[in-house]
Amino acid sequence: MKITDMHITPIAIVDPPLLNAAGLHAPYALRIIIELVTADNIYGLGEVPGSAKTLQALEAAKDAVIGKDPFQLNAIKQEIYTRFGEEGVEFRGEAPWDQRRQVHVFSALEVACFDLMGKATGRPVVDLLGGRARDRVDFSAYLFYKYEGAGGELGFGADPNATGWAAARQQAALDPDGVVAQAKAMCDEFGFKSIKLKGGAMPPAEETAAMLALREAFGPNVPLRLDPNAIWSVETAIEQGRKLEGILEYYEDPVRGQENMGKVRRALNIPLATNMCTTGFEHLPGSVQHHSEDIILSDHHFWGGLRASLELAAFCSAFGRGLSMHSNSHVGISLAAMAHLAAATPNLTYACDTHYPWQSEEVLVNGRFQFDEGALVISNEPGLGVELDRAKLEELHDQYISCGLTERNDEIEMQKVVPGWKFEAQRW
Amino acid sequence: MKITDMHITPIAIVDPPLLNAAGLHAPYALRIIIELVTADNIYGLGEVPGSAKTLQALEAAKDAVIGKDPFQLNAIKQEIYTRFGEEGVEFRGEAPWDQRRQVHVFSALEVACFDLMGKATGRPVVDLLGGRARDRVDFSAYLFYKYEGAGGELGFGADPNATGWAAARQQAALDPDGVVAQAKAMCDEFGFKSIKLKGGAMPPAEETAAMLALREAFGPNVPLRLDPNAIWSVETAIEQGRKLEGILEYYEDPVRGQENMGKVRRALNIPLATNMCTTGFEHLPGSVQHHSEDIILSDHHFWGGLRASLELAAFCSAFGRGLSMHSNSHVGISLAAMAHLAAATPNLTYACDTHYPWQSEEVLVNGRFQFDEGALVISNEPGLGVELDRAKLEELHDQYISCGLTERNDEIEMQKVVPGWKFEAQRW
Repeated sequence: MKITDMHITPIAIVDPPLLNAAGLHAPYALRIIIELVTADNIYGLGEVPGSAKTLQALEAAKDAVIGKDPFQLNAIKQEIYTRFGEEGVEFRGEAPWDQRRQVHVFSALEVACFDLMGKATGRPVVDLLGGRARDRVDFSAYLFYKYEGAGGELGFGADPNATGWAAARQQAALDPDGVVAQAKAMCDEFGFKSIKLKGGAMPPAEETAAMLALREAFGPNVPLRLDPNAIWSVETAIEQGRKLEGILEYYEDPVRGQENMGKVRRALNIPLATNMCTTGFEHLPGSVQHHSEDIILSDHHFWGGLRASLELAAFCSAFGRGLSMHSNSHVGISLAAMAHLAAATPNLTYACDTHYPWQSEEVLVNGRFQFDEGALVISNEPGLGVELDRAKLEELHDQYISCGLTERNDEIEMQKVVPGWKFEAQRW
Repeated sequence: MKITDMHITPIAIVDPPLLNAAGLHAPYALRIIIELVTADNIYGLGEVPGSAKTLQALEAAKDAVIGKDPFQLNAIKQEIYTRFGEEGVEFRGEAPWDQRRQVHVFSALEVACFDLMGKATGRPVVDLLGGRARDRVDFSAYLFYKYEGAGGELGFGADPNATGWAAARQQAALDPDGVVAQAKAMCDEFGFKSIKLKGGAMPPAEETAAMLALREAFGPNVPLRLDPNAIWSVETAIEQGRKLEGILEYYEDPVRGQENMGKVRRALNIPLATNMCTTGFEHLPGSVQHHSEDIILSDHHFWGGLRASLELAAFCSAFGRGLSMHSNSHVGISLAAMAHLAAATPNLTYACDTHYPWQSEEVLVNGRFQFDEGALVISNEPGLGVELDRAKLEELHDQYISCGLTERNDEIEMQKVVPGWKFEAQRW
């Protein structure tokens, strides 16, 4: 089995004006779709966050992949890492999203290889990762503070595709009532049974008030999470955290860095979670040293693929860490990969994050995934079980070209609403 | 794909009178051969150390496996672990060999499932573990203090099968000259390029003298290892270790327990290795806390299979531990599994242990594996690439019945030579 071609297609998907610690989501989120084709004309799909830098790196990786057997992941990885430097040479960055090039590149390729392996063997990807620990993968409602509208209004004109998942998707959510309304609409439509609020956008006391309002509205049986994306001080995190003890399922990245996370963790009686301070294998010794978190949010795009995510799971199991899953704005290839991975991970016991309800577009034949009571049911179709809609891919690629964005920059977008707004690594 | 039958065959293979910290190898080593058969009549092989307890556990595991799909390792593991208790409920024990029942059982079954998966997909096992990080797997010469003879003389009469790998296999090795002669004969015949001496059998200064004699005979380019199997005191280990700085590639388990290992490690300028103090995922936090070793010897029979061994490898990579591989007396199914695993493990950079030269029997069609310059070349045959010789299996099963052994007990065997001899957890 030999890879003979690699198609790399940057796409832009409509994204609503979601607020976060780094500013505001642009009207379009960028993704890159990878397609590996074999000599016998099987194709395997991968998806990663888009940027000019990742695009360039993927182009540069082409000849490291073409000619290879998709089962030879170690050889492909070695070649990618040799080409782009060892893990840790490039750093994650301070933004809420990870910016390491080599893990992005290898992750995209690894998923596409697993899709190929699955199709070649007639097996769903979950079976190539150790088999099903579960048949249904639970996802969490992922709430955001947001301005009114569904995307496009803030810089690129009205967007006709943004019909969204419900009227509520268009609504503003800038206070506790708005957050609760968003949560109700999202849970009603998708059946989610856990709720996460992306914080770091409003003054801390307002975000705490929103969590308390969610608790009031949903009762104690719906687990709640708050993620201030590391822009609170230790003092603020502890002060707000005291009001959230007994309320939160976990408190995600209230502060920056493992040492600070450890301080907050020791001061509070709430499980701390991270996808910002412990985000690569090179951070695991520090995680142990500082006991910086109770729960790690995995993300196969950032941890180096599906197999690496299982290795992270083994660490979590051995070192008493819980395991959850992080998400960025994405389409169905990433969602399928996340779901297969989660299904194969016995100790991934928390409902996974997903931005999927916030998107309305898809690159797959049969359109968008449907959630069943907040969960995805893992199919027995070979590989990822998804098929590429090439007309739709082309359309979203055209949208990428026409929107003119080449990297994610939530600060620039925020400045269109609040002139002079600047990202601060610690705001409150 | 469905497992419809499971054959469990205890065998006894001739073993020479090798000395170790726990006494003397009996004339026969016990192994259990597992054969899983599927509805479409493919068979998958596994092998584990034999004992009445493991045999009974495997029998009890039968109905947890029959009816299952071999790709569903998570489901099989969950059922085995539920049935036999969680890791850590049963302890490793003080002997040089590991005695945890549930990891033995699952390891044997997991390897057999990988053999089935490989045969079903037309892929060698290495390809199902991430592909080849190398095509050749280096093994180390594994020296033992021993009495004269090839097995059988000390309790069960002369053994006609023990023709051995060379005349030297019959020789006594009870002093530095004997050890060097054994090393030369073994390296000449198999081409090994690293040498390990199983210590803990002679007074410490004699074992150190043997290592210095090996250095003298082989020069600085042949890595040397000494393994006193944890029966030295911290003081002895440091005293002997000072003479071995600059001589040893690694110093394996000179003392018992992670805390003691950490003490010795900090006192010496030699890498410390273990397969006794850090032998399961539940020991990894202690390994970090005490920094008990520089190198972990993996063993898929004890770490819970091939995938778990890769998870251990990821820990080693993240926490700056080297990785080598442990062995017990075994036949070719275990050897094939070890070789496929090693080939798929990028950071397994040390030559692996194997007792294989000490055995003369085999259960495989085509007979025994041949080493090429001390290495095994990984084939592209599906699965483990080995085929069961059922007549030979039957013969070795008859030998198991007739020898009357049901568990390994090196103390009893030693008492036949040295009346009243007792195992001591710390002897020197």
